[in-house]
Amino acid sequence: MSIKIALLGFGTVASGVPFLLKENDEKISLAAQNKIEIAKVLVKDQAEKERLLAAGNDFNFVTDIEDILADPEIAIVVELMGRIEPARTFIRRALEAGKHVVTANKDLLAVHGSELLDLAQEKGLALYYEAAVAGGIPILRTLVNSLASDKISRVLGVVNGTSNFMMTKMVDEAWSYEQALEEAQRLGFAESDPTNDVDGIDAAYKMVILSQFAFGMDVKFEDVAHKGIRKITPEDVKVAQELGYVIKLVGSIEETQSGIVAEVTPTFLPKSHPLASVNGVMNAVFVESIGIGESMYYGPGAGQKPTATSVVADIIRIVRRLKDQTVGKAFNEYKRPVLLAQPEDIQSSYYFSILTPDQKGQALKIAEIFSKEDVSFKQILQQESENKQARLVIITHSINKNQFEKVTAALQSVADFELLNTFKVLGE
Amino acid sequence: MSIKIALLGFGTVASGVPFLLKENDEKISLAAQNKIEIAKVLVKDQAEKERLLAAGNDFNFVTDIEDILADPEIAIVVELMGRIEPARTFIRRALEAGKHVVTANKDLLAVHGSELLDLAQEKGLALYYEAAVAGGIPILRTLVNSLASDKISRVLGVVNGTSNFMMTKMVDEAWSYEQALEEAQRLGFAESDPTNDVDGIDAAYKMVILSQFAFGMDVKFEDVAHKGIRKITPEDVKVAQELGYVIKLVGSIEETQSGIVAEVTPTFLPKSHPLASVNGVMNAVFVESIGIGESMYYGPGAGQKPTATSVVADIIRIVRRLKDQTVGKAFNEYKRPVLLAQPEDIQSSYYFSILTPDQKGQALKIAEIFSKEDVSFKQILQQESENKQARLVIITHSINKNQFEKVTAALQSVADFELLNTFKVLGE
Repeated sequence: MSIKIALLGFGTVASGVPFLLKENDEKISLAAQNKIEIAKVLVKDQAEKERLLAAGNDFNFVTDIEDILADPEIAIVVELMGRIEPARTFIRRALEAGKHVVTANKDLLAVHGSELLDLAQEKGLALYYEAAVAGGIPILRTLVNSLASDKISRVLGVVNGTSNFMMTKMVDEAWSYEQALEEAQRLGFAESDPTNDVDGIDAAYKMVILSQFAFGMDVKFEDVAHKGIRKITPEDVKVAQELGYVIKLVGSIEETQSGIVAEVTPTFLPKSHPLASVNGVMNAVFVESIGIGESMYYGPGAGQKPTATSVVADIIRIVRRLKDQTVGKAFNEYKRPVLLAQPEDIQSSYYFSILTPDQKGQALKIAEIFSKEDVSFKQILQQESENKQARLVIITHSINKNQFEKVTAALQSVADFELLNTFKVLGE
Repeated sequence: MSIKIALLGFGTVASGVPFLLKENDEKISLAAQNKIEIAKVLVKDQAEKERLLAAGNDFNFVTDIEDILADPEIAIVVELMGRIEPARTFIRRALEAGKHVVTANKDLLAVHGSELLDLAQEKGLALYYEAAVAGGIPILRTLVNSLASDKISRVLGVVNGTSNFMMTKMVDEAWSYEQALEEAQRLGFAESDPTNDVDGIDAAYKMVILSQFAFGMDVKFEDVAHKGIRKITPEDVKVAQELGYVIKLVGSIEETQSGIVAEVTPTFLPKSHPLASVNGVMNAVFVESIGIGESMYYGPGAGQKPTATSVVADIIRIVRRLKDQTVGKAFNEYKRPVLLAQPEDIQSSYYFSILTPDQKGQALKIAEIFSKEDVSFKQILQQESENKQARLVIITHSINKNQFEKVTAALQSVADFELLNTFKVLGE
């Protein structure tokens, strides 16, 4: 017997699905206990259909979603079009038509996930999306299955390959942000408008989904503060290295006594931290928990075959559950009321880079500002700069978010000072 | 409703189980959709029972396995005694009594796994053992679920915490093997007889189990060649560093065109390889596959809470499957006929460290030996040694196992040469 599936979209990732189904047929059929057959593939229009056929693709391409929804033989719809519309409507309609759904669409899930998950639950259908977070890393299913026994206290993720590629170049080759972006665009890692990647938006989407799986809390995208890598300078990178750190764009979710806090921000990682050696377009999710302690899941965050591997793993799971008649189970059953942390419970060390006039007494003035908020220094570096200015770099001991906001505001209120950058610093 | 379980043994790992069941009760109960209750705990004798009770342990301790086997309310038996007997007999009897079994006993599974798995299968019972390989790293279930869609070509593992702790000290602190062993014993990482850890036996057990999950092949322990870290000298460590490598004890399983080859041996890892920064007692399993490409799973390989986390994850899975009435499924369903690789298909680069008389023409003599077997050099280093001897270090290009054996035999047959060490070298 074979289970028939339909693909929505036939871009890079989608074409990895037939590759795996063919190359790994024996193992996949054994795991699914069924053959999996791509019965139909939805493409945009007749022109795309003809182009794909001419290129030798031997699939039943259709241009109308109705051809798939109305086909009672198709059990699973695999959405790989990306973006919000028409993906959202097609997934809704597929669920309404009684079809199980697999998707890799993190934007959609982060923003409209709950409406789609509710609909799937109501219909007793599967809606799986392992590929939505860190493409090839099987982090979601691992959190669901293997870490069900563990209580997670913090998740740290290098989950945006584009920005990590750029940061790796900025650290290893001392490139500027602009040079790194140009190379990322040349290699096709960054889009012409790189906003989603370099401003931490893509990583914030992933934090929304990871919050649900790791902490059972449906944090809203708006509640994930995100700050990107645009403002990181070669000076920041250099001083980080001198002080024993590597800068990366890190997404974090932490449970404090009052609730959880999720954010994305450039972070100083101690060189010995396992995330510090995650380089290039590779991703990793680092988990701190009361049982395992520290564990890390490392792999490619995007790409045709890695993403298709996660998509096919979801398909296998659904096909197997169809056989076992247990298919209604939600992908993530861990649900708790959302509680967001109070600012006074959000603790971190911070890096401050401040431009001051090159005159006596500036360091003292700054020390007074920090001292007023009870913020003590772990490290302080003063560097000559151009134009009779000095650059002062401070790494604080652990402080709370209120202290951080107050010090930042105070520094910004002094006309002589220019607050160049503030980043989080992870302790050893 | 609650599901009753029994623990066999109440050592370090076992006492981590009630810790997790208590501290993570809410999440565990939600995942299992049942309360999990430790109904009985088997201890060795009355003296141990009294000692544990006096220490404030509030469990129903029993000293006779019959009290557990004959109790119809106990659904799951959790074996955490270690070693072969009586664990093997108790697991057999538990299965015969219709009880599901969870164990962390890698020695037992590597040597007698198939008889126990066959019995479980015959009885329609679960026999799960996530904790048996790399304690806190959920690698087995990840291979079963998430990598079902992928075809694995090679697995590399740093899976023995004791030897990795020692190697880390030998690399980072330039300690000798003896110094590292003494410190490992002082800290309780190594036993007074460290054979299993330092000779690669423990890692070889884990390769047996990983072969089953990653390649579907039930490789015998005897077919896993193992070579330990006893003979590694500070000179080996130093030259590795100079050439851009880190030495670690690495277990590997690789599929060649004729079959698979599993072995454990000290290996030169390029410094940039993700496994090279796995330090101290931490473990990691690095997977190469056609879909994901490269992925790594990192965490503690042993210890009370990490191991208990894997054990409780197994328990949750069984309890949930009892509810879903799908409990007969084998932990690992991937099975293929065992095919062992032919020596000519087993390819690797190697490191040779050779002591020669400090006379002209020695390097040429050695070059002739390598050349005769078509082995070319990637790197060669000559170092003055004591007693009018020179030390010659060679890293070859990729060669097959036959070539390696022939060169090794030829070097050993020359009375003037002393072949100090040969290790595998992983390419970039």
